[in-house]
Amino acid sequence: MKLEKCITEKNVNQNMLNIQYAVRGPILDRAVQIEREIEKGVKKPFERVVRANIGDCHALGQPPITFIRQVLALAACPALMSSPDITDDVKGRVRQILEDCTKGSVGSYSPSNGLNVVRQRVVQYLTARDGVAASPDDIYLGSGASDVIKAVLSLFVQDIDGKPPAVMIPIPQYPLFSGTLSELGLRQANYYLDEEHDWALQVQELERSWREASQDSHVRALVVINPGNPTGQVLTRGNMEDIVNFAYEHQLFIMADEVYQENIISKPFHSFKKVMHEMGAPYSSMELASFVTCSKGWAAECGLRAGFVEAARLQRGVRAALTAARAVAQCPSVLGQCVLDCVMKPPAPGEASYPQFIREKKATQRTLTERASTAYREFNSIPGYSCNTIDGSMFAFPRVELPERAQLAAAELGLKPDEFYCLRLLEETGVCVVPGSGFGQLPGSFHLRTTILHPPDEFQHMMDSIRRFHTTFLNRYS
Amino acid sequence: MKLEKCITEKNVNQNMLNIQYAVRGPILDRAVQIEREIEKGVKKPFERVVRANIGDCHALGQPPITFIRQVLALAACPALMSSPDITDDVKGRVRQILEDCTKGSVGSYSPSNGLNVVRQRVVQYLTARDGVAASPDDIYLGSGASDVIKAVLSLFVQDIDGKPPAVMIPIPQYPLFSGTLSELGLRQANYYLDEEHDWALQVQELERSWREASQDSHVRALVVINPGNPTGQVLTRGNMEDIVNFAYEHQLFIMADEVYQENIISKPFHSFKKVMHEMGAPYSSMELASFVTCSKGWAAECGLRAGFVEAARLQRGVRAALTAARAVAQCPSVLGQCVLDCVMKPPAPGEASYPQFIREKKATQRTLTERASTAYREFNSIPGYSCNTIDGSMFAFPRVELPERAQLAAAELGLKPDEFYCLRLLEETGVCVVPGSGFGQLPGSFHLRTTILHPPDEFQHMMDSIRRFHTTFLNRYS
Repeated sequence: MKLEKCITEKNVNQNMLNIQYAVRGPILDRAVQIEREIEKGVKKPFERVVRANIGDCHALGQPPITFIRQVLALAACPALMSSPDITDDVKGRVRQILEDCTKGSVGSYSPSNGLNVVRQRVVQYLTARDGVAASPDDIYLGSGASDVIKAVLSLFVQDIDGKPPAVMIPIPQYPLFSGTLSELGLRQANYYLDEEHDWALQVQELERSWREASQDSHVRALVVINPGNPTGQVLTRGNMEDIVNFAYEHQLFIMADEVYQENIISKPFHSFKKVMHEMGAPYSSMELASFVTCSKGWAAECGLRAGFVEAARLQRGVRAALTAARAVAQCPSVLGQCVLDCVMKPPAPGEASYPQFIREKKATQRTLTERASTAYREFNSIPGYSCNTIDGSMFAFPRVELPERAQLAAAELGLKPDEFYCLRLLEETGVCVVPGSGFGQLPGSFHLRTTILHPPDEFQHMMDSIRRFHTTFLNRYS
Repeated sequence: MKLEKCITEKNVNQNMLNIQYAVRGPILDRAVQIEREIEKGVKKPFERVVRANIGDCHALGQPPITFIRQVLALAACPALMSSPDITDDVKGRVRQILEDCTKGSVGSYSPSNGLNVVRQRVVQYLTARDGVAASPDDIYLGSGASDVIKAVLSLFVQDIDGKPPAVMIPIPQYPLFSGTLSELGLRQANYYLDEEHDWALQVQELERSWREASQDSHVRALVVINPGNPTGQVLTRGNMEDIVNFAYEHQLFIMADEVYQENIISKPFHSFKKVMHEMGAPYSSMELASFVTCSKGWAAECGLRAGFVEAARLQRGVRAALTAARAVAQCPSVLGQCVLDCVMKPPAPGEASYPQFIREKKATQRTLTERASTAYREFNSIPGYSCNTIDGSMFAFPRVELPERAQLAAAELGLKPDEFYCLRLLEETGVCVVPGSGFGQLPGSFHLRTTILHPPDEFQHMMDSIRRFHTTFLNRYS
């Protein structure tokens, strides 16, 4: 007799059944399988899998910043303070942090919103960036930005006047948003970015999306990803003012995913906090949640899970609810908080660690800039491919034309055309990218997302593989 | 004109408004305030606040385990590998972990359920503990146990046949459970532990609780905290078999909070996994979620946020849903995972780090045992106090009689009697403990929870303060 399960697909939280997360989805699962097959000696038409599915910078060869790692080592093991190889500014930084850890141990709980010293450092960073004061009480540190994005989205889970809540997100989007909306049972109201105009965010499209979603739901918040992920555009200041104005008119809470603000390649970045402040009243009093992470940018310490939200101008009771929810989660990793401390205040000129720090930081930024223009050039030189310029972030999101016969072949396998394409690319070349459908795209258009983080040789190898594969694919299905 | 807020107490997620988390609640807020007042030179009838509200071991003087901290330092900063002060077994351990980190960096994402090497180590630990094989696919690492407890509870958020879901939890309980149930909108079905019989878990009380809750809700899961928090009892094997049988008969999913399994003072600990295995079919095939943490025990690295759930025998689709939800959160801190690796396989006899490790571990365990008997003796010697023996965990949860006049005085201030008592204790002595109402207690009975982690002198000072305060309090209100 088979024991009946307590939880089944029928009675489990149905929202959790609906979670899709393409970045770590079936294509990655297959890539991992192929890696294991290669290890076991199974012959493949390629030597190894090239993972380009996730913005995992260190995994793709970006070296860690030495200053951060030395701070971590000494914070974890203060006995190493006597090491003559470590400079005084590192030791000074560690002392500052440990003074704020109870009994000087990173193993003690911190306050649930983060160590005071780190939140003060965040405030200094934000104040300098935006030219307007920030408050440590508005800062909630998290295990990466994902963690606090979910916490803020949770605030909206509430029917209003019998209507279910909805949140506007861009399409294409980063699937953290669609996945978290699914998990929380929040409706997703899509607005499409304008690919023909460098993925611009058009206000009339926001209006359309809001109008349609408002028919049967109550739209609560507007998510803006700037710089764009996967799309790589950087919003202009004028565009941002239009967006703020739109949110004001429809009483929408702006959630600004600004995690790529340190991955700017070719255009000036403006924070929503700054733009709203400079627009003056009433915009400067609007609520805002802005997300920053240590997982991207020049630090790119995604494995160490550190980020924060600045949740500004929340109503007192709402802030209390958010604070209570964070308290139940105890606190984010204190070593993660140390990383954030370093990112918010890196070594300054004149400090012993500065020369090495600035060399490492600039090398990272330079190679990213080079890769962005290589990706743009290479993709646009493959027939059937087109790619906008990459102004920020660390991805290319080229559009690719897929012949009708390929679309039929995909349908026979129960796959979306771009899934089929990316899966064949993986099987034939070992290159692992994410199909555009994982991020959303205009119906009938097909894309893929690749990181642009690989070292030049590997990146070239990947581009060559895609080009060769595409030719074969077209020959087969045209 | 005042700008209207987008989120207000009226339209925010009402579940979040309901979250109570006594361990970091108003009493702690007041304690922090008093600490600031003292810093500013405000005169108080005591020199400093003694925090006994949270099981924050390092903060209360438990020293970190050197082996763990050396592993962390080298994992963060492999350049220190050449340091002659660090033993070879530490270096070997770090090499093993870094080999499983992509490109050898703890800054790379790990798989969302954790590094393979660490999950394998967990499997070895569990297999040795339980005498039955565990599977790495059942192991989900988290940012502490809290994180994965919430993930598992999320599975039950689903009405069944029009009835809302409920979860049975002990009273007194650890408020992570009540807080998370509130946040998720799950109903809380209380079963009372039997204080007269050393906080035993009586099956007829489970039956009563289940019957009452089943009238208007669908009871899905049974939470058991063993060793008990805040109550400190350790379940007997026979009692556990009864509980398993009860869960089997009512088709309840057992959630075993076993985070204090390494804080055993005086009785043998049995895991639910082992007991269910040894009971044989059908019990050995029942689903089970068991939670383990690095925040407690001899490591007690709560600031580093590491723990895991073994989610055994889940239905395939349910497992996929849990896996998808974890993937959206990316992964737990890789340095936290390093801590777990060390806890699962500490230095063994013959290894260079062993002598120091075992000295440190035993010192921690010895002092905890001493403190448990001191707390028991001292509390029982205060008139009006009674305290059960503390067999596990790191808390005392004595019962205290409060005179009727004190209860009236509390009511006038809108406080529960035990809140009033603990707040007065804080104001007059600086001792910060948590009122029993934060954990739940039989109506009409009053308790407080204190950690028993302080160094002997400080612990004695705390006990003396409580004794003196209690006498004054009785004089005032009798």
